[in-house]
Amino acid sequence: MALDKDDVKSRVIEIATSLIAKHGSAGLQARTIAKEAGISVGSIYNLVGDMDALHRIVNAQLLDELGVAGTGTVAELDKRGETDLTTRLLELSHAYLGFVTENRTAWNALLAFNRSATVDETPDWYFVRLEMLFDVIADELRATELGSDEQKLAIAARALWSAVHGIVTNAYVGEDKRQLVETIRMQIDILIRTFVRGLRA
Amino acid sequence: MALDKDDVKSRVIEIATSLIAKHGSAGLQARTIAKEAGISVGSIYNLVGDMDALHRIVNAQLLDELGVAGTGTVAELDKRGETDLTTRLLELSHAYLGFVTENRTAWNALLAFNRSATVDETPDWYFVRLEMLFDVIADELRATELGSDEQKLAIAARALWSAVHGIVTNAYVGEDKRQLVETIRMQIDILIRTFVRGLRA
Repeated sequence: MALDKDDVKSRVIEIATSLIAKHGSAGLQARTIAKEAGISVGSIYNLVGDMDALHRIVNAQLLDELGVAGTGTVAELDKRGETDLTTRLLELSHAYLGFVTENRTAWNALLAFNRSATVDETPDWYFVRLEMLFDVIADELRATELGSDEQKLAIAARALWSAVHGIVTNAYVGEDKRQLVETIRMQIDILIRTFVRGLRA
Repeated sequence: MALDKDDVKSRVIEIATSLIAKHGSAGLQARTIAKEAGISVGSIYNLVGDMDALHRIVNAQLLDELGVAGTGTVAELDKRGETDLTTRLLELSHAYLGFVTENRTAWNALLAFNRSATVDETPDWYFVRLEMLFDVIADELRATELGSDEQKLAIAARALWSAVHGIVTNAYVGEDKRQLVETIRMQIDILIRTFVRGLRA
């Protein structure tokens, strides 16, 4: 039975996801995908557009997964009745660390993709997914002094998100990889504890 | 008059620096360098090793320049008699922002290089340069409560460095590039002010 167009598109995205997870964006070759999917290179371009568009679809899935990891952590914290901001932010940071560790190659490819993309060619639905990630942190900070100013809250959420991101993605530099996760957790710990103390001061 | 070996090596590094500044690591092609330097591809490998080794030399220069920007900022702050930690850390962060803005392509290439490099093949002199950057921040934090514990001080310096780095390199995502520098400065401002307040609380 022949697959319909949507099935073939799903299959192409699935193959692309797997290639990026294994080899980063260098692995995303139309010819490789065509061969694995048993279709022509031209069909791929018809189905999903160019390789950048396909990479963006894979990235959006990855951002969704990270979003689910974030909201899942929040749900668990709420269920436990955890109200301490430091604990909540630490667990969210550890969720991010776990996500990056599990998806290192694909995540690095996403970062490189975002860095080289221009705003003009980036569709709104991609931005929306990024904003949703920052919103998870904004919701946590809302009960602090920052909550009285929506703009300041958004900036602070973005700052804290990027700060933890910087620690997670930068930590390996000059570090013994065996001690990596421990080093990252210690850095996150100092940053979050001091930041929250500063918010309360 | 024929150039001696050191002169040719300097010229090769100069060309590599310029290629990376313009096109990132994709621009670092032995054939392009050979053509521009008027030597054979084989000579390049004899002089500097492979393209990774050459990229590492260019990166070390870049790290040195960033180090000079950092220590230069510290010297200027000292000359002005500036003792406020928040002001000092903010100006150091702005120096980093300025450096990344001026060297965006080469800096992104360095980050990608570091990410893909393994610790085993990285020479000590490369790590030393990275540590020196963290030390600039450690020196600033020494007069706080962190100063009583050298290990904690090192972790905090690294955390704060990486946090600002994360803000600077991540901020463009989902942002209008025209408002970029202003957005980054606002994020740095909230992070540093809150962190220092937390240290003093």
